[in-house]
Amino acid sequence: MPARDSYHDIVKRALTKAGWLITHDPLRLRWGGKDMYVDLGAERLLAAERDGQRIAVEIKGFTSPSEMDDIEHALGQFMVYHAVLLEIEPDRRLYLAAPNAVIVNIFQEPLGMLLLRRYSVRLLGFDLVREEITQWIPSID
Amino acid sequence: MPARDSYHDIVKRALTKAGWLITHDPLRLRWGGKDMYVDLGAERLLAAERDGQRIAVEIKGFTSPSEMDDIEHALGQFMVYHAVLLEIEPDRRLYLAAPNAVIVNIFQEPLGMLLLRRYSVRLLGFDLVREEITQWIPSID
Repeated sequence: MPARDSYHDIVKRALTKAGWLITHDPLRLRWGGKDMYVDLGAERLLAAERDGQRIAVEIKGFTSPSEMDDIEHALGQFMVYHAVLLEIEPDRRLYLAAPNAVIVNIFQEPLGMLLLRRYSVRLLGFDLVREEITQWIPSID
Repeated sequence: MPARDSYHDIVKRALTKAGWLITHDPLRLRWGGKDMYVDLGAERLLAAERDGQRIAVEIKGFTSPSEMDDIEHALGQFMVYHAVLLEIEPDRRLYLAAPNAVIVNIFQEPLGMLLLRRYSVRLLGFDLVREEITQWIPSID
């Protein structure tokens, strides 16, 4: 089993508050004999839709001593999971979840913005205290 | 200064044997106030070219206990450096250098092949004993 991020339960509660049903904890992906575990899978039913929206959420605290290491590893994980999801479940959208302070410190700075623009990383910001989802980048339909 | 991979000197000697001049050790990239260090910068002059070929080489041993961690981190590093190089020096091609056994074990397996196909990662394989570059993926002009 994968290591759990300390923000795991906060994001679960925040997603539930926002109307999402947690369907996988974790979400296992398998490709060519290799197993990967994305932190959460969730689904939301909208009245207008027949099939609902499905997301996969990888939660990152960006708490290591090296911010560059954190950025590299988070991006690499996102890219690996994204490539596999596109093959096995292309309708499920992958998000990298991080506390709002991280979104501001990392992804509203030049390097973070460059990576978002170049690689179409999807972000989900959450408020640690209120335990709420505060932003989807890009905004979710 | 960045940590040095134990394969660092082997790759330097292998590139030199293959006609490359090591110009940076390490190659510093800077974007938006953040510094990054790619292991090596090298240049090769060909008779037919005015400006020569320039490469940046990040060397990876893939020796940690978790192969998935190694893959994620190597891919993330490649993607970060690649994004920055495209902005500041688009003619310099970035390669991920790894021992031949790693190329076979990781990048000729389904997950590795999927990542190569999806993200256009460039690889450079080297022989640890002969200290020679044995393959460029895709092949270099």
